[in-house]
Amino acid sequence: MAKPLGFEKPLGMRDILPESLAKQRRLERALRACIEPWGYEEISTPSLEYYDTVGVASATLTDRMFRLLDKQGHTVVLRPDMTTPIARVVSSLYKDVPFPIRLYYQANVFRAQEKEAGRNAEFYQTGIELIGDASEDADAEAIALAVFCLRAAGVETFRIAIGHVDFADGLLEEEIADEEVREQFRKYLYERDFVGYRHLLSSLEIGSDGKQRLEMLLRLRGGKSKIAEARKLTDNGKARRAVETVASLWDALEAYGVTEDLLLDFNLVSNLNYYTGVVFEGYAADLGTPLLGGGRYDHLLAQFGRPAPATGFAIKMDRLMQVTPEIVNREKANVLLCYTANQRRAALAEAQLLRKDGLVVVTRLVKGQAEVEAGRRDARFARVICMLDE
Amino acid sequence: MAKPLGFEKPLGMRDILPESLAKQRRLERALRACIEPWGYEEISTPSLEYYDTVGVASATLTDRMFRLLDKQGHTVVLRPDMTTPIARVVSSLYKDVPFPIRLYYQANVFRAQEKEAGRNAEFYQTGIELIGDASEDADAEAIALAVFCLRAAGVETFRIAIGHVDFADGLLEEEIADEEVREQFRKYLYERDFVGYRHLLSSLEIGSDGKQRLEMLLRLRGGKSKIAEARKLTDNGKARRAVETVASLWDALEAYGVTEDLLLDFNLVSNLNYYTGVVFEGYAADLGTPLLGGGRYDHLLAQFGRPAPATGFAIKMDRLMQVTPEIVNREKANVLLCYTANQRRAALAEAQLLRKDGLVVVTRLVKGQAEVEAGRRDARFARVICMLDE
Repeated sequence: MAKPLGFEKPLGMRDILPESLAKQRRLERALRACIEPWGYEEISTPSLEYYDTVGVASATLTDRMFRLLDKQGHTVVLRPDMTTPIARVVSSLYKDVPFPIRLYYQANVFRAQEKEAGRNAEFYQTGIELIGDASEDADAEAIALAVFCLRAAGVETFRIAIGHVDFADGLLEEEIADEEVREQFRKYLYERDFVGYRHLLSSLEIGSDGKQRLEMLLRLRGGKSKIAEARKLTDNGKARRAVETVASLWDALEAYGVTEDLLLDFNLVSNLNYYTGVVFEGYAADLGTPLLGGGRYDHLLAQFGRPAPATGFAIKMDRLMQVTPEIVNREKANVLLCYTANQRRAALAEAQLLRKDGLVVVTRLVKGQAEVEAGRRDARFARVICMLDE
Repeated sequence: MAKPLGFEKPLGMRDILPESLAKQRRLERALRACIEPWGYEEISTPSLEYYDTVGVASATLTDRMFRLLDKQGHTVVLRPDMTTPIARVVSSLYKDVPFPIRLYYQANVFRAQEKEAGRNAEFYQTGIELIGDASEDADAEAIALAVFCLRAAGVETFRIAIGHVDFADGLLEEEIADEEVREQFRKYLYERDFVGYRHLLSSLEIGSDGKQRLEMLLRLRGGKSKIAEARKLTDNGKARRAVETVASLWDALEAYGVTEDLLLDFNLVSNLNYYTGVVFEGYAADLGTPLLGGGRYDHLLAQFGRPAPATGFAIKMDRLMQVTPEIVNREKANVLLCYTANQRRAALAEAQLLRKDGLVVVTRLVKGQAEVEAGRRDARFARVICMLDE
């Protein structure tokens, strides 16, 4: 295969230039300021983890991980997410810290891309983990904090959809005996392929009551009234318990005053059985894919030897960048200070004074007027100051 | 080989826990606030780069890089430094931006470790690059900014040693014809092995004048007076030009008012011929290894097709952490707000009010007094507020 050209980057890798990066940093600061008052502390974990520890426990498919051999011959991976390394820390370095534990991160994660499709292979996330609290109040805290984060970031129009993985699961189990068929339904729900779902449903040999219930499932997306509609579909068992959990959660979310930014979606399901209870996804106007995802994952910590319920969410920073206003085009205050060799001492001292006054000052040794004129034409500077020989 | 245990990390990889990370973030903010007024803009580049582009051009030995094959079959590396990716950007995305270009970064870089020795394989740097300016004033700007950075970070006692790679090179070329022997001398200088240097010198078959000059070289470390001493050692040619460059640089540094934190070291040499002119290293009291390194690298940009002189430096954040004061142990203001189910609405609303007042508030649903008592014993909280049923 051809060698890459001198300035090419691997597939899905990108440079973030100053203007975009300034916006990303501003958003990171806003999220940090929103999260810390809730008692979350920032943590950092390594870019590389053992495949046999974090790689195996992660919800990411092995095939999507960047893998390499370290000098000791172990397979290591570039971290595919931050939740799994944090579960590792909570079970080891944090083993004596009492639950619940609140941690957050602002970090990059990696997903290998198959082919050119404009998808990032490295992307930045801000996320929180609330570990060791099984109550609906913990779910409510995660969701309310997600709402406050999106508000703090300046997302103008967004909704967070809330569901519970046991609702669709329970309903399917009540109607369909064959696990493979249930899995097919779940796959359609996960992919939001309602056409495929309905097609499969029509071919199913079950009673018309059952068909109607599974058809109704698709309509359980909306406001608080969907709780009553969901209750009508199921009297007891797994699905009904899921509805009551969501009802109690909604009460808590009303206390936070965030329900105007929420909707209920009882057909949310989990990919790879990673999530175990309440799940949620954040959508912004004009963005087809979620910019935020989260939910309860009560089985992960056990894989590191410290079983505990947990919930959390992650915001995808590149998607957040797309749905937040640009920094208002501030008047550029950058000063170019041109000086000749004889004026050096005075010029450098003057630059320091101006910087102390809050200006951005670039100094430049020049030989004559031509270089000064080039500076005046340079769009990076709002003002050119000259300290030249007479 | 044995599988890693569930909570082990690859060699040289580490978690940064909240207390340390808070300090690192504080230092990063201080450095950022110091650097930006000089007109440097922050840039981010990918963690992975092609070996054939950035890997080959980097000053890091191939053997020290983490390498892997991407899905397209190219060898990619975890970036060993930030200077080389920035040279790539300046030659491609920035090809129409006029010189000089000022960029800075706060990023992690990677070096594969051979064996357990407590060395980090992933470490954080803050650094600047000033590209497209060959003048001594550019060298002075980099060094002065390095001094201001270390002052801003709160390093109490430090010195930045300044040298020029051509001085030792020139002197050696004048006295020794055999390049291999010269290389041996340079190696001793680079490793600061003055015993080895003197041993080799004593075995050398050259005149006593020459021996005396090469012996004197080792003593050219100190204040401004070393410039005059260096001049005495060489009349013209490469080494003398290096002295005059350093003399002019020192004048500029006096203008910045930073010379009290500097010293001259004419036996600084470059590893791998990476640096091409003025070089400098920052040392703090009680730290054996430099916490800052930089210098002029005028050959790197040409490898990406946009030849340009350049200078810059990088601060190693983990070493900076070791030589800066801890955050004063502030009174912990964290509040634990315990509430029973009936008080949920009032309690969550109260928590929001307290957070708006600047407090860190953790809320906890409790069933009774026992959980409240556990909260009172939890060192993470300075105060426990109860909103319980009567």
